[in-house]
Amino acid sequence: MVKAVVIITVSDTCFKNHAKDESGPALFQLVKEQFPDAYIHTIIVPDEKELIERELKYFCESNIDLILTTGGTGLSSRDVTPEATKAVIQREVPAIPIAMTLESLKKTPMAMLSRATAGIRDRTLIINFPGSKKAVVECIEVVKPVLSHAVSLLANDLVEVRAVHD
Amino acid sequence: MVKAVVIITVSDTCFKNHAKDESGPALFQLVKEQFPDAYIHTIIVPDEKELIERELKYFCESNIDLILTTGGTGLSSRDVTPEATKAVIQREVPAIPIAMTLESLKKTPMAMLSRATAGIRDRTLIINFPGSKKAVVECIEVVKPVLSHAVSLLANDLVEVRAVHD
Amino acid sequence: MVKAVVIITVSDTCFKNHAKDESGPALFQLVKEQFPDAYIHTIIVPDEKELIERELKYFCESNIDLILTTGGTGLSSRDVTPEATKAVIQREVPAIPIAMTLESLKKTPMAMLSRATAGIRDRTLIINFPGSKKAVVECIEVVKPVLSHAVSLLANDLVEVRAVHD
Ligand code: NA
Repeated sequence: MVKAVVIITVSDTCFKNHAKDESGPALFQLVKEQFPDAYIHTIIVPDEKELIERELKYFCESNIDLILTTGGTGLSSRDVTPEATKAVIQREVPAIPIAMTLESLKKTPMAMLSRATAGIRDRTLIINFPGSKKAVVECIEVVKPVLSHAVSLLANDLVEVRAVHD
Repeated sequence: MVKAVVIITVSDTCFKNHAKDESGPALFQLVKEQFPDAYIHTIIVPDEKELIERELKYFCESNIDLILTTGGTGLSSRDVTPEATKAVIQREVPAIPIAMTLESLKKTPMAMLSRATAGIRDRTLIINFPGSKKAVVECIEVVKPVLSHAVSLLANDLVEVRAVHD
Repeated sequence: MVKAVVIITVSDTCFKNHAKDESGPALFQLVKEQFPDAYIHTIIVPDEKELIERELKYFCESNIDLILTTGGTGLSSRDVTPEATKAVIQREVPAIPIAMTLESLKKTPMAMLSRATAGIRDRTLIINFPGSKKAVVECIEVVKPVLSHAVSLLANDLVEVRAVHD
């Protein structure tokens, strides 16, 4: 069961002017619909690798099931969300970004330029999404069917895990 | 030519009770059909990163062409087969797990949760498969067409390599 | 805008006999067609990890926008282009090789054996292509639609970046 989710908008622009963040609120809505009973916390951090790492570590230590980031996955020199994520995860989940890439490539070849990654730190699953609201909506659709099961596996929630396997 | 194959079932449960291992024997059958003249050795190890690494290294030093693992690729905290594999390989072969993910996603979105990897140590190709018998059968179908050629390339078996390229 | 491109043929055979290099000239032609005003430099290096790394670093320090390599991405023991590339890049662009794998798998399962990678060092994008002329032509078709935008993002060429996003 997904009980606690953190949504991190990574963006210099949105950090300076919170009103410009469209992807964080969009992600909040989509998570709220899927997990109406979950606690959902949202924050905005600038494109600073060490700050992103610090927040990721903090929330992984805080019994958060799922951390979804949006932004900082592109090619600009300030885009370092995947590097921050890789620095904190202990186990990668490469098939999640592969599945997102597959779907996004059906819409645009620019999907090749998203460097999003996904992985596990302790019992928390971290997934990067691109920064644009449109891409976030597309990508959350891709991972939606596996989020609850993934979190149950990480939490060793055997009742729910067995229900899927049988 | 594929002369020697090792199949490693990675599973705490199967290690305690060998009779529960369905994927190892299934993999043995499939390899036997494809390479009837090959030596095939099977073992079962628990989900312990260091033990898995030790076995992988041992067989890579033993003139084994191909090591296929099954199990330990999921999200549970005990699932560390990909981490053990990454710790011993010198060169990754990322397109093998990508091709397996592509095929598996056609069956179920849960394919996103397999963290299987593939790579080379010295002259041995190591490929992770998921733990379920069904997934093993699906994934071996994907890699089947390339196994013989891959092993020939690693062994610098130029006769067979040229036959494929011409 | 793509102003400067380096094409590196990685091959022991072609290094000894430049006349045998078919993929480098093919790549040159394709880049010339897409970016007629760009400076394009081609070199041939043997399959030596340290030599490849040295050339990659040198050109990344020389205001080159794009480095395309061909060769050395296979499974033979001498194939180390992806390892040299990973050693110099600071940020990976995994969806580029995923997209190339997707396309190549439509032609042949042997695409599973290309270990091509892509990534960024400072402001230079590096992309590995396989060694065969046929595969090079196929793979450049895949990345063609994103090259100009990718280079603009890296160069913070905001005019061109905005044109694509609007
Ligand atoms: Na540069």
